[in-house]
Amino acid sequence: MSGATPATFALPARFLGLARNDRDAAVCIAGIPLDIGTTNRAGARDGPAAIRRASRMLVDGAHPIHRTEPAEMDVADIGDFAIALGDIERSLALIEAQAEGLAHLVALGGEHGITLPLLRALARRTGPLALVHFDAHVDTWPDSFGQRYGHGSVFFHAIEEGLIDPHRTVQIGIRSPMGNDVHDWTLARGVRIVPAEAAHERGPAAVAEEIRAIVGDAPAYLSVDVDVLDPAFAPGTGTPEIGGLASWQLLAMLRRLGGVRFAGMDVVEVAPAYDVAEITALAAATVAWEYLAMMGRPAGP
Amino acid sequence: MSGATPATFALPARFLGLARNDRDAAVCIAGIPLDIGTTNRAGARDGPAAIRRASRMLVDGAHPIHRTEPAEMDVADIGDFAIALGDIERSLALIEAQAEGLAHLVALGGEHGITLPLLRALARRTGPLALVHFDAHVDTWPDSFGQRYGHGSVFFHAIEEGLIDPHRTVQIGIRSPMGNDVHDWTLARGVRIVPAEAAHERGPAAVAEEIRAIVGDAPAYLSVDVDVLDPAFAPGTGTPEIGGLASWQLLAMLRRLGGVRFAGMDVVEVAPAYDVAEITALAAATVAWEYLAMMGRPAGP
Amino acid sequence: MSGATPATFALPARFLGLARNDRDAAVCIAGIPLDIGTTNRAGARDGPAAIRRASRMLVDGAHPIHRTEPAEMDVADIGDFAIALGDIERSLALIEAQAEGLAHLVALGGEHGITLPLLRALARRTGPLALVHFDAHVDTWPDSFGQRYGHGSVFFHAIEEGLIDPHRTVQIGIRSPMGNDVHDWTLARGVRIVPAEAAHERGPAAVAEEIRAIVGDAPAYLSVDVDVLDPAFAPGTGTPEIGGLASWQLLAMLRRLGGVRFAGMDVVEVAPAYDVAEITALAAATVAWEYLAMMGRPAGP
Amino acid sequence: MSGATPATFALPARFLGLARNDRDAAVCIAGIPLDIGTTNRAGARDGPAAIRRASRMLVDGAHPIHRTEPAEMDVADIGDFAIALGDIERSLALIEAQAEGLAHLVALGGEHGITLPLLRALARRTGPLALVHFDAHVDTWPDSFGQRYGHGSVFFHAIEEGLIDPHRTVQIGIRSPMGNDVHDWTLARGVRIVPAEAAHERGPAAVAEEIRAIVGDAPAYLSVDVDVLDPAFAPGTGTPEIGGLASWQLLAMLRRLGGVRFAGMDVVEVAPAYDVAEITALAAATVAWEYLAMMGRPAGP
Amino acid sequence: MSGATPATFALPARFLGLARNDRDAAVCIAGIPLDIGTTNRAGARDGPAAIRRASRMLVDGAHPIHRTEPAEMDVADIGDFAIALGDIERSLALIEAQAEGLAHLVALGGEHGITLPLLRALARRTGPLALVHFDAHVDTWPDSFGQRYGHGSVFFHAIEEGLIDPHRTVQIGIRSPMGNDVHDWTLARGVRIVPAEAAHERGPAAVAEEIRAIVGDAPAYLSVDVDVLDPAFAPGTGTPEIGGLASWQLLAMLRRLGGVRFAGMDVVEVAPAYDVAEITALAAATVAWEYLAMMGRPAGP
Amino acid sequence: MSGATPATFALPARFLGLARNDRDAAVCIAGIPLDIGTTNRAGARDGPAAIRRASRMLVDGAHPIHRTEPAEMDVADIGDFAIALGDIERSLALIEAQAEGLAHLVALGGEHGITLPLLRALARRTGPLALVHFDAHVDTWPDSFGQRYGHGSVFFHAIEEGLIDPHRTVQIGIRSPMGNDVHDWTLARGVRIVPAEAAHERGPAAVAEEIRAIVGDAPAYLSVDVDVLDPAFAPGTGTPEIGGLASWQLLAMLRRLGGVRFAGMDVVEVAPAYDVAEITALAAATVAWEYLAMMGRPAGP
Repeated sequence: MSGATPATFALPARFLGLARNDRDAAVCIAGIPLDIGTTNRAGARDGPAAIRRASRMLVDGAHPIHRTEPAEMDVADIGDFAIALGDIERSLALIEAQAEGLAHLVALGGEHGITLPLLRALARRTGPLALVHFDAHVDTWPDSFGQRYGHGSVFFHAIEEGLIDPHRTVQIGIRSPMGNDVHDWTLARGVRIVPAEAAHERGPAAVAEEIRAIVGDAPAYLSVDVDVLDPAFAPGTGTPEIGGLASWQLLAMLRRLGGVRFAGMDVVEVAPAYDVAEITALAAATVAWEYLAMMGRPAGP
Repeated sequence: MSGATPATFALPARFLGLARNDRDAAVCIAGIPLDIGTTNRAGARDGPAAIRRASRMLVDGAHPIHRTEPAEMDVADIGDFAIALGDIERSLALIEAQAEGLAHLVALGGEHGITLPLLRALARRTGPLALVHFDAHVDTWPDSFGQRYGHGSVFFHAIEEGLIDPHRTVQIGIRSPMGNDVHDWTLARGVRIVPAEAAHERGPAAVAEEIRAIVGDAPAYLSVDVDVLDPAFAPGTGTPEIGGLASWQLLAMLRRLGGVRFAGMDVVEVAPAYDVAEITALAAATVAWEYLAMMGRPAGP
Repeated sequence: MSGATPATFALPARFLGLARNDRDAAVCIAGIPLDIGTTNRAGARDGPAAIRRASRMLVDGAHPIHRTEPAEMDVADIGDFAIALGDIERSLALIEAQAEGLAHLVALGGEHGITLPLLRALARRTGPLALVHFDAHVDTWPDSFGQRYGHGSVFFHAIEEGLIDPHRTVQIGIRSPMGNDVHDWTLARGVRIVPAEAAHERGPAAVAEEIRAIVGDAPAYLSVDVDVLDPAFAPGTGTPEIGGLASWQLLAMLRRLGGVRFAGMDVVEVAPAYDVAEITALAAATVAWEYLAMMGRPAGP
Repeated sequence: MSGATPATFALPARFLGLARNDRDAAVCIAGIPLDIGTTNRAGARDGPAAIRRASRMLVDGAHPIHRTEPAEMDVADIGDFAIALGDIERSLALIEAQAEGLAHLVALGGEHGITLPLLRALARRTGPLALVHFDAHVDTWPDSFGQRYGHGSVFFHAIEEGLIDPHRTVQIGIRSPMGNDVHDWTLARGVRIVPAEAAHERGPAAVAEEIRAIVGDAPAYLSVDVDVLDPAFAPGTGTPEIGGLASWQLLAMLRRLGGVRFAGMDVVEVAPAYDVAEITALAAATVAWEYLAMMGRPAGP
Repeated sequence: MSGATPATFALPARFLGLARNDRDAAVCIAGIPLDIGTTNRAGARDGPAAIRRASRMLVDGAHPIHRTEPAEMDVADIGDFAIALGDIERSLALIEAQAEGLAHLVALGGEHGITLPLLRALARRTGPLALVHFDAHVDTWPDSFGQRYGHGSVFFHAIEEGLIDPHRTVQIGIRSPMGNDVHDWTLARGVRIVPAEAAHERGPAAVAEEIRAIVGDAPAYLSVDVDVLDPAFAPGTGTPEIGGLASWQLLAMLRRLGGVRFAGMDVVEVAPAYDVAEITALAAATVAWEYLAMMGRPAGP
Repeated sequence: MSGATPATFALPARFLGLARNDRDAAVCIAGIPLDIGTTNRAGARDGPAAIRRASRMLVDGAHPIHRTEPAEMDVADIGDFAIALGDIERSLALIEAQAEGLAHLVALGGEHGITLPLLRALARRTGPLALVHFDAHVDTWPDSFGQRYGHGSVFFHAIEEGLIDPHRTVQIGIRSPMGNDVHDWTLARGVRIVPAEAAHERGPAAVAEEIRAIVGDAPAYLSVDVDVLDPAFAPGTGTPEIGGLASWQLLAMLRRLGGVRFAGMDVVEVAPAYDVAEITALAAATVAWEYLAMMGRPAGP
């Protein structure tokens, strides 16, 4: 709250107010306003702008535990990726192309469908990735209501295409209805599912420890579907499920993943039209900020 | 308000509470929950359900002027058309196929993009149609931000494909910014544009008279984009423009089109996530009800 | 805006901030939080409190045309009438009893059902009243979905009980669907219906002149159902109908009724849960304020 | 998410999309849109419709823990019960009559007052029932602000009429202010009260174990007032109290009640006008779905 | 809607998407996020950001009547002016200093209090200005509830300080309560007041002609308080008054002021927290866009 | 819920419906509608009125654990303090003067800036106070974005002025970003910070015990910034931070502070324009009610 900067409400709506916008930064923030593959409520296209606005609360000061300052790091907000209106497959190709060549991408969705092309672009460089996946849904359906590359089939394809290593994949917060066949397929691939109730009962420290054990020292990707939070904490999303995590639990897990070798992340499925007092957008912004703050500190749990 | 029926709030959410749902009715109501071609706010996919809920206010009783009772006519609510998630071109093909064989369709959108396949299905039977088009936008862009068949290029294609006769086409309520080239192209085709301000200044009776003169006795189609109304009257839409019509003006024009040989209609672009107190959905429901009430009476202005 | 009073936001929520609360005032304001007879959306019980809060905008200063100052008149806010939860008939009896003995009552609803007991209490003293009735609905159904004394049958009973003189009754803004039998019964009684569209086309001055002619010099009652306004102007109500009046038109008519011998009034059907930015409550508060301002000036149109 | 069904947003608004609507099913779902006995905010009349819409998120797939599929069970959505507008006592009689003869009813409220006639209909067949009651309020006032059969006196009457066995009655989540006399009366009858804070401190597994011990093998009824949840999780209700349960806790308790011999249930007090992003309606829908999923599995904790 | 630009929802939130941000442009757009002098609802500090977001609807294409393209003109968005938190007098001094040296300023408020320092900066260069003032309130109170430079005393001070010529000042849309002394003072200074009702009755063309006659060829300033619009059209404001203008009327007047020698303008009092579907912000953005479009065309009515 | 009182919705909006309004009560409730020093969202000026309305849920009955009845205690609602519009320093002086002479003040904010003058008035009588401070922010910045006495610098000044004893000061729920210098300064003064995550992990009973140990038997002040709650529980506030406390945790701590010698309290930063279903206002009202209920019982943990 130093006197040299404008008050929060007068800040420009760039992520953390970042002036830098070139693709050469150590970490690039990009919005990906795709939502045409969603299967319940629409509107995730407006997620990136809402997350940026909400991030203004986080511009000034250090993380209270890590003591690092994300807004002072080697990070740029490179704006939004172009997509193809009305055509999901062409949109995925465009996203993959734009992700190429970035050192480390933090993507602001947009629907969860954007994760597949991001993994394609990344795995080409790193090989199969470990995956830390916070979500209410496993997203391993072979299709989304008949749509091959919808937001419910992302990790089916990621596994089938060898982009992620299912034995180094952990899904936390799962609780939606799902076909028993989908459930069994996922478990049979070796994916570790931590249901929402288990996460509540065991507490964030224990779950974080398990995540670190599963991921090990593989290059890893973090994908946070904001609907991992309970709708009380994240009403502004398209496919809510009750019984989800509290925001403090999500943050408490993230800040205990310090030793993981993350190569990229996304936070997706913010649908601002259903939000209240921008609390969902703020949750998503804080997740990205927490990730940056964690990266800025020495490794270790 | 007879005692034999449940109160409004306890009615099922079918259009006008219609129990009938077969495709053989003289008039079929169908929802078309497509919105992936929209270019600003999403959410028109939820339009059909919201319009049906709002139509419960109109179940009981006759039109106060025409004295006809839409809910007692030969009309069915046949549910929603199937669409292809994430693929606009395949969705348009599906819509066209499902419209085939219906005697007279009243379509509840969904985005304006649905009108093109409905015109394709209809014009095959009738030849080029006269068009009565209420909208804030001319929708004659050759593409919508690079998307060939988006909601802004409907009537460009309808003219190019010979589905409508531009000399028997009238657009009422136009007021958005538009490229001068698009504006000139539209006028050059012979389309009559009645800007919103002119509609306000001249009054609904005079505009309705001009509409009837333009359309003449050709088979005609009515397409009502709910954004023809001012955002005060229709906040729940994707591409609002201020300066629009009041709802009484729209109704006053519609009820003076009694002699036109309408072969079908749609009301589109209701996006309930942005609505307040369901007033936009009620406006759309009332437009369809007004159309039915008008059809039930003897011809004449 | 004098410095001696607190700013608008800091005023207490009494009608016009009135400190006076005794029943001996020349005019008494009372809230009547009844809504159990409503047939679509509930919540008019919260109308009185919302109207009082909104009235804070009107505390300070004179009417810009009449130059009178309602907050300085001989007027009291006597709080809310007691009602019987879950029992409409007993509630009506309670309302009638509490209205007894007041010199001149301005009632803040609550649903339209409250008007019947108010007319019973008043007509006992004055004989059959002339009625100036602004509404989207005629409210002359013999029952409301099987309920004898619901909000849709108020004026049926008022006519049947001889409380109002149908030949001196005028209904302005009517536009809802209604059974042709109800419509015909109402006209046959001698009631003058001015449909919403006619009010728009003729303008407020002409309609006001007709109202004055119909009412003449009989003692009169003013009943304003806030749904006479278009839902754009009054979303916060239970049974909205599009095509309604603009708020300026309602005010313009009211301020031209200066010569009428009003003996009481109500403004009803504000349902704050559906309001936005309290615009409906403000409309209702302004209607009551306009009425008071009109009463404070010399008679004449 | 199989390709054979429409996407969530295109499903019809029946509970779990159930096509079946006859009264002969093993379990019948019915809405009961009564709210005229509420004492704070109105609007629970719209609960059934909102719960049905929200239930569309739960149509497709199995419960992730029980592995059962409610939408595939012997269950029907039989629509809404008729009520008497403006007359609570006659409404209760109507509800009781309509509940007669159903094998097993899952009722969607409506206010909590509906539970009394449902218990009357059920206890006639089963004798005094054990009661599992989730709520912020004990609802054992002898009257509700002077109203004998309001939503605050349900279980006073149920005990007085011998419909439930107070020694087999447990109330979880209690936290509202209440008269010490009411509090003491309830305890003296033998009712077990688990305050909200105790439920938080002890955790759902321990509380569920206590519930099973209290209920034993008696025929039991489950009544869930959605205000047992904290207003963060269930803002859309009429008489909220802070300090309530999280939705995961409620689900975690319900899914541990597998061995209880439930004969019926209700979920009540959803008031959609106060909801945000339909999270309260989704909570209520999920509670009913969780109950069905539990019933479909073999007995045992 | 050309394919070269992103869709509306993906545009950056600068006014009309303007990339240019230097102070040397022929016209500079600036936000002034001051709201601490407001006397009813707060929140106009968020007006500039909301207006910029809403302006994205206006980026692409020409004005449909003037045929000019504001986004292609010599215009820059120079961001927000700095203000002094919690200190209105110091804020006014800061605003005045920042307005110095700009060729032509279009200010986005913020509360109406910002107009006084803008007039001070401008009149120093031009001498006393003619004023075209759209508002529900005269804003000529000598103070705002005891606050010398609040949003209700702007034009009192502007007249007293000789910044505007009261004989060349016209106020359109006035309708709030006001002290008769304030009313009389304003008229006695020579100010022309066009009440809202008169604007409705006479129509925009006639009023625009009167405005041009009053202003003549003096250098002029345009100040648009968004509450000149009815709350139906502009709910998102702090001191709403019913009976206001429709948005089409405001636009119709503005586009007929082509010959006036405007030296600057502002649009103020947008309070986004009370807005619905951003319609108020869109109204304000369109007012500024209409002004720019008018400036780009040859002089004349 | 006794029949002698009106239903909750019909109660007047005084705190707990208190009729008493004199300054001689043992405890006085006062609203302080100041918000001009806020640095993100505005609108805390409307907090007092919203808290009063929400308190109607708490009028009737005893605290379910303490068994005390706040509405029956020696307590008065003395209305709102006057403030100086647009001038924060003069406002603070006014607040201090009005707090003088009250035996025990429970203040309803308004922004957190009001706590400084309240501490000034109180410490003059008691000497340096112990402080129990629930908040997301430490509020020990030396200034708020350049503003000396803004809502972020309250406790910096309170320490510097010797109003509170930093070694007897405990801050619970802290989690916002902050400069490491501010963080270190606060710790170096001797202030105990309990971060939000620690409060979650340790549980309310353990934290309450630590609070009691820190405060000891010194005269103490309780300051509750409603943003200590997670935005899910308190969306209606100006500077939300995710990861906050649940409302049950806050209540559970407060009710374990029975032995502390509190000399006054405030609950601040309720901004109703961002609230949903008044849950934030209800949280604030309940905090004040919990405090009163605790004071009414015998001392001890």
